[in-house]
This record gives sequence, structure tokens and C-alpha cells, in this order.
Amino acid sequence: MAMIDFWYSIGSTYSYLTVMRLPDVARAEGIEFRWRPFNVRHVMVSQNNIPFRDKPVKTAYMWRDIARRAEGYGLAPILPAPYPIAGLVFANEVAVLGMREGWGIDYTRATYRRWFEKGEAAGEEPNLSESLREVGQDPERVMERAGSEEIVHALASATADAMTLGVFGSPTFAIGRELFWGDDRLADAIAWARRKR
Amino acid sequence: MAMIDFWYSIGSTYSYLTVMRLPDVARAEGIEFRWRPFNVRHVMVSQNNIPFRDKPVKTAYMWRDIARRAEGYGLAPILPAPYPIAGLVFANEVAVLGMREGWGIDYTRATYRRWFEKGEAAGEEPNLSESLREVGQDPERVMERAGSEEIVHALASATADAMTLGVFGSPTFAIGRELFWGDDRLADAIAWARRKR
Repeated sequence: MAMIDFWYSIGSTYSYLTVMRLPDVARAEGIEFRWRPFNVRHVMVSQNNIPFRDKPVKTAYMWRDIARRAEGYGLAPILPAPYPIAGLVFANEVAVLGMREGWGIDYTRATYRRWFEKGEAAGEEPNLSESLREVGQDPERVMERAGSEEIVHALASATADAMTLGVFGSPTFAIGRELFWGDDRLADAIAWARRKR
Repeated sequence: MAMIDFWYSIGSTYSYLTVMRLPDVARAEGIEFRWRPFNVRHVMVSQNNIPFRDKPVKTAYMWRDIARRAEGYGLAPILPAPYPIAGLVFANEVAVLGMREGWGIDYTRATYRRWFEKGEAAGEEPNLSESLREVGQDPERVMERAGSEEIVHALASATADAMTLGVFGSPTFAIGRELFWGDDRLADAIAWARRKR
């Protein structure tokens, strides 16, 4: 089965589209995706790449573009969603822990659904605890573990790996060193993965 | 026939893809495109939206992305092309004059071809004169007219119109007030134009 690394950061707006549709796409296309949370904010600040802050015209377009594309995928977000989110780093630390323990994909989808479909910012309450409960996890245990040195280091390490690879935004699909940035490049990434096998 | 405004700026890298394929797309899809040159640099500086300067990682990805997409369109650019180009404003003033006189589309395509396929920066020599000769125009006459107060004003006015509409980048496809930004949104723009008729 072809394998694609799905680099994403909870906190990215366009990643909502990918997070919600990826399991269906994986099934339909017979592609395995490895979900790899990273800290896109760290990457963007390091690279002086600030896509929306202080850019109201571009930001307005972004929400409209997401609305149209969400409709095409059968999603019904309430837009604009709270943005930017203060809890970006912690949300992704929770995701990193979840990937180790097997509930990371479900948590990512649950937290995005609450963020984009209920207006609850990801990475903070009530979204955090509710999303964790929804995927069968004890919020208190998870939050303590997610804040541990080990997990903080694991997210920082994943972020360093992303930067080494050349990832600069979320979502990014990687087949080896070949990168495809943006939800709208998913089909291209799949075609590339098939070609390379 | 459905009508789409094609807002573009000679100087935009991704617009190469659109400029080269648009006449074929228009014919195949039965869509009329109104080519509208504007000064994207003015818009971006005004809006603090600087996509590539001092962003080497994102810039490297941009060239790779254009290379892959160009291949898919049967184009053979030599990349990276000279970028950014110093003659952006004048190149688009020439295009504005050309649109009035009926050779603007041919000039835009000729100058992009030389820029992306021969490595000659658009808006300066030898690209400017050679592109104009290629489309049957006298370079001396055109350059004098393109620098006139009337044409300088016309480009500034088109740029103001673009900003009023919410255009922030090139290429942008507009159907009324509905905007689609990026060569990769052309199919979405066409679908929207058809739906709205």
C-alpha cells in the first residue's frame, strides 16, 4: 500500500478540510496516511511566514474559500471559526500523545469538529476535555501526560523533522522528500505516491 | 457565454501557468475570460502580504510546485526563472496599453514565455522589445505610450478596482464579486460561472 506522511498542525484552518475527509479518502484510494502533528506556528515564526495576521483581505478570502470547499466535501462548518487559537502548542502535544496511544486521529477529528462546527477553540476548554472524553480518554490524565517533558520534546522533535524536510505549512503531504502543501494538493500527492511505487 | 474576469500581474510566478493555458481552456470550456492586468506588487505591499521575499523554504517549494504543474500542462519552463522582476510595473503598463489596442494577450503570453522559458526577465530588455516585435508592435512607440500619464493612470485605476473587489494576489478569477485565487482554482471558477448563469 502506498504511504503518505500527513504533516499537520491543529490550529491550521485549511487542515480542517483534510482532517475531516482523510479517512474516507484513504479508504477509497487505498492509501495509508501517517498522521504527524507538528508545531506549524514555530515553523512560520522561524521562517517569517505569517499568512493571515494583519491581512484582513486575504483572511476574508480564506474563510470564503474554506466555506466553498467544505460545501463540496459535504461539511457544514460555522465560519469564521475562532482564529488564531491560543492553545495551538498544547493541542498538538495532546495529538502527539494520542498518536503514541492510538487515539490521536480520533482526537484530532473530534477537536476540529468542535472548533469548526461548534465554535469552540481547539486546545482550550471546553473543547479539550470534551474531545478527549469523546474518544474515551480521561482529560486529567491526558493533560498531565501531554505537558510532560517527554511529550513536549516529542512535538519539538517532530517539528524539527518537518523543518528538515522543508515543510513550511499545514497540511503538507510528503512522499519521501516530495512535498505537496495544501488540502488542494491531496489528489496530486496521491497520484505521486502511486507513480513512485 | 459565461464570462470570468482574469486578474493578473506580469511578475507573478504562478500566473505563468494560467497565462499559458488559458486560451486552450477558454476554447475547450466555452468560457470567455476578460484579461485584466493590475499591479499586484502595490496590492501586496499595501496589505503587508509578501509571499516569498526572505522566505527561502517556501520559495523553493513554489518553484518545485510550478515545475510539477507545468509538466502536467505540457509546459517546459527553465526554473527558477529570474525573480522578483524589477520591471513589474512597466510590464503591466504595456499590457494595459495592449489590451486597449488588441495585442495585450499575445504580448502577455510572449513576455511570459521569454521570462519562463528563456530566462529573460519580463518588463526589461531584451524581453520587452522582443516580445513586442513578436506580436507585431514597434517597441519604441509602445514604450513611449505605455509610460504616458494616461496609461500609468489606467494601471493604477485597474489596481484600485482590483483592491475594491478584494483581489490580493495573482492570478485571481472573478465572477461578479466571487473570487477564486490561484491557477489551481481555475476549474472551481469555471464551475461557479456555469452554476451562476
